[in-house]
Amino acid sequence: MAQTKIIIVGGVAGGASAAARARRLSEDAQIIMFERGEFVSFANCGLPYHIGGDITDRSKLLLQTPASFLTRFNVDVRVMSDVIAINRDAKTVTVTNLLDGTSYEETYDVLLLSPGAAPVIPPIAGIDNPLTHSLRNIPDMDRILATLDAHQPAHATVVGGGFIGLEMMEAFHQRGITTTLIEMADQVMTPVDREMAGFVHDTIREKGIDLRLGVALDAVHPHENAQGLTLTLNNGDTLETGILIMAVGVRPETSLAENAGLKLGPQGGIWVNAQMQTSDPSIYAVGDAVEDMDFVTGQSTFVPLAGPANRQGRMAADNMLGRNESYQGTQGTAICKVFDLAVASTGQNEKQLKRDGVRYEKVFVHTASHASYYPGAEVVSFKLLFDPETGKIFGAQAVGKDGVDKRIDIMAVAQRAGMTVEQLQHLELTYAPPFGSAKDVINQAAFVASNIMKGDATPIHFDEIDHLTDNQLLLDVRNPGELKQGYLAGAINIPVDQLRQRMNELPKDKEIVIYCQVGLRGNVAYRQLVNNGYKARNLIGGYKTYQAATR
Amino acid sequence: MAQTKIIIVGGVAGGASAAARARRLSEDAQIIMFERGEFVSFANCGLPYHIGGDITDRSKLLLQTPASFLTRFNVDVRVMSDVIAINRDAKTVTVTNLLDGTSYEETYDVLLLSPGAAPVIPPIAGIDNPLTHSLRNIPDMDRILATLDAHQPAHATVVGGGFIGLEMMEAFHQRGITTTLIEMADQVMTPVDREMAGFVHDTIREKGIDLRLGVALDAVHPHENAQGLTLTLNNGDTLETGILIMAVGVRPETSLAENAGLKLGPQGGIWVNAQMQTSDPSIYAVGDAVEDMDFVTGQSTFVPLAGPANRQGRMAADNMLGRNESYQGTQGTAICKVFDLAVASTGQNEKQLKRDGVRYEKVFVHTASHASYYPGAEVVSFKLLFDPETGKIFGAQAVGKDGVDKRIDIMAVAQRAGMTVEQLQHLELTYAPPFGSAKDVINQAAFVASNIMKGDATPIHFDEIDHLTDNQLLLDVRNPGELKQGYLAGAINIPVDQLRQRMNELPKDKEIVIYCQVGLRGNVAYRQLVNNGYKARNLIGGYKTYQAATR
Repeated sequence: MAQTKIIIVGGVAGGASAAARARRLSEDAQIIMFERGEFVSFANCGLPYHIGGDITDRSKLLLQTPASFLTRFNVDVRVMSDVIAINRDAKTVTVTNLLDGTSYEETYDVLLLSPGAAPVIPPIAGIDNPLTHSLRNIPDMDRILATLDAHQPAHATVVGGGFIGLEMMEAFHQRGITTTLIEMADQVMTPVDREMAGFVHDTIREKGIDLRLGVALDAVHPHENAQGLTLTLNNGDTLETGILIMAVGVRPETSLAENAGLKLGPQGGIWVNAQMQTSDPSIYAVGDAVEDMDFVTGQSTFVPLAGPANRQGRMAADNMLGRNESYQGTQGTAICKVFDLAVASTGQNEKQLKRDGVRYEKVFVHTASHASYYPGAEVVSFKLLFDPETGKIFGAQAVGKDGVDKRIDIMAVAQRAGMTVEQLQHLELTYAPPFGSAKDVINQAAFVASNIMKGDATPIHFDEIDHLTDNQLLLDVRNPGELKQGYLAGAINIPVDQLRQRMNELPKDKEIVIYCQVGLRGNVAYRQLVNNGYKARNLIGGYKTYQAATR
Repeated sequence: MAQTKIIIVGGVAGGASAAARARRLSEDAQIIMFERGEFVSFANCGLPYHIGGDITDRSKLLLQTPASFLTRFNVDVRVMSDVIAINRDAKTVTVTNLLDGTSYEETYDVLLLSPGAAPVIPPIAGIDNPLTHSLRNIPDMDRILATLDAHQPAHATVVGGGFIGLEMMEAFHQRGITTTLIEMADQVMTPVDREMAGFVHDTIREKGIDLRLGVALDAVHPHENAQGLTLTLNNGDTLETGILIMAVGVRPETSLAENAGLKLGPQGGIWVNAQMQTSDPSIYAVGDAVEDMDFVTGQSTFVPLAGPANRQGRMAADNMLGRNESYQGTQGTAICKVFDLAVASTGQNEKQLKRDGVRYEKVFVHTASHASYYPGAEVVSFKLLFDPETGKIFGAQAVGKDGVDKRIDIMAVAQRAGMTVEQLQHLELTYAPPFGSAKDVINQAAFVASNIMKGDATPIHFDEIDHLTDNQLLLDVRNPGELKQGYLAGAINIPVDQLRQRMNELPKDKEIVIYCQVGLRGNVAYRQLVNNGYKARNLIGGYKTYQAATR
């Protein structure tokens, strides 16, 4: 077999995975990996945790070096090497050596683009100053640490409530720095829906973070002594801060591809087919710079996450060396640690389904991460979105202190396998008191969903509660003691265990809107009422879900 | 609709689930639940944890009471009531009130049997004594606690290394009692294979437990003062102990069904169809007393676990009230905590596949539960069994200190959904450094399995290593420093990173049997050698797997 010459642009997740896989497939291939920065294959997901102090040893973030790539994989890694142009006709790239400014050409048989995505820095007045940072790579991290060392700021501001923003917020808090988090939307962690984010907001505020939702940064005014910044917000507020992190999102690095005339997708990323091949069959692209196919909708989407990047890199190497592997779409499965909470999701959220006009139903359960009688159980708040006709799983979200990753992983597998919510009832998951429940969170959510599909439950949702009519009556079936935590205005209280005796207090000509704390007793009450000829609906997820939406 | 009269025999997992579900479906049904013991709906899985002290409050084990069942579900619960006969023609049961010895008849329209399974007590001389116990219910637990209080034994012996045996061993250890665990097989926790159990044996011995494998209890000799027991083992050893727990297994309670002429299955449990209906259409049965269909083989099996019991109870209630729900087989998904380790499995194990003459392949990975650079990562040792032709998942096993439940749950879902190992490569699981890796344990195992299926890897297994021929050469590709932990006799050592330079030291006429610590570097070396024209095989799971099998 003739020696194949593979050029890889970008030496982090996707590029590094591709290089290693390509070598395993072929000893003969010549493999050159260009990286603009000083480091390859570093742990970009670990950067905030080094700043916060969880990862004390900086060298742990450097997973591979050019030298280790050479000895183990015989890959010619050239760092500080910026690929500035692709000449598709000649099949060459133009490379600038950033150390000496010289440029040269390198030929390729196949080219892999893995340039990643760059932080978006909005055009805000005054934002270009030494106390304002974004965080993408090791030098960014080092600069932030240097700023912290030099200025010992008492206050930090993070703009953006996504993964990086939340992690940097926590990092500052761990360093004892008073922190403000500013988010333009009405929630952090947009992959989950507003009411699920409410649990995260609670935790953020409990930790003493100054959380400002629905507010944007208008301007930055560096102090004259360069020791601080005055921030002006779009609600007229001002804020004094010592360091500013911009984490409002990332944009795919497409200029190299675009200048070479490669096709871009509707979201502005590099277009690729399922084989990770661009519009030029000799050029592949992977990772944060490309558009993926959304697993649920089949539409083009932009999901800059490490998991897809790594698997795509491996697959692109297969295909560059003559195999035929297909990437099977991205669910956007994601998780973020926020203090002692985890918040995670997979598939479509309700905002996306609404936007796309998809008919969906939703259920919420709030139930223990493992047998509640065994120490350490924590509530998992779980949301399941599905097609009420077919039972198709659209997406799932979870928040809690324990077992959140597990439940979303279960849902990610079930969704990818094409399971219905009816089938989720039958899942046989690990159970022993320290690990789960005989009826797991997922089984329980599936029971509720199946009850709705079969007509055994008529749901009402938290977002309908403030719009009841005179023909509806609110019934709180909790115990009187629970009402101290709050209740819905106008509700009458009959504890579920008294309902059979006191049912005659309720009118048969109104629809009884039942609620309890999480929806379980509400369902018992609902079944009693309906089986006795009443019209009723049960608040899915109970008062707890209603409350979360307001937090 | 005419009032249906439902009789339920047995008030724990399956029976209690059925009673609650039946009431939710029908207000009219008359529901009577008989329980031979004093307690209904207690947490049998929690009993060892109360003995060990993790669950301090005994009342937490009592999930429901007859009174709470009545008020919430209008179920007539009759405890201390032993159903001693079924008259199928008359559709009545005969009930003995254990408090006063009187008997009476009760009619039924539909009958549900949920009698559970009883501990097997082998006919061992001297075993019937006040210091020997089994553990099935609250009175058993109370008796064990009373024995501990009264005698303050310095030494405890547990016979049987299954769930209850392991949990009781840990309970005694937590109470500061020197403990011996005796298991007749060569491993504890038989749902996993011998080599996976090796990790558990390690932990058990590290904790100072006197673990005796391959040994059986022959006779029990109570001391004359009744303060202790002398145990005689089948290897001639004797053992002085203060309390003896027999936990060698359970046997389905079938006498009631058998005496009524109901069909039993090949495993000796009550036969039911997928609707949980016995050979008499008016009689249903669920839980530990029935035989389930094995999800993988379609054969009848006996899986006495809480999860299936609970879901079967719910489903039987549906069907008793005119619906048509089908139980979809049991994978036997199970987990056990053993000190800080978890050991879990789903589907078929290798022993079963071998016994049934099924053609299978296996892979092992030992990889971090989450990003290794983030604190708290622990090794998950994972075994995947699959059909090398079709990629069908036969089963999975995992052992480790973190993330074991999650990985087996993922596999339980994937198996139930009919996914292949090829599809497991594409799973998109939650990833952030505290929770996982960009290429999760499951992805990595799937990569290895797919490599084998595609011919990219030629495996050799730990159980073949001691039977190499003269035409095979053992190559250890670890770093010299790692050899201190042990190595395979006769191996030559060339670290993987020197292999390209030193390849000429290896003969081309022999098969090179490569190994490293866990199999990853071995694969890199394997690919180098094969791509350079050598014959080679890689030890799947590495030296770590080989070692575990001997522990």
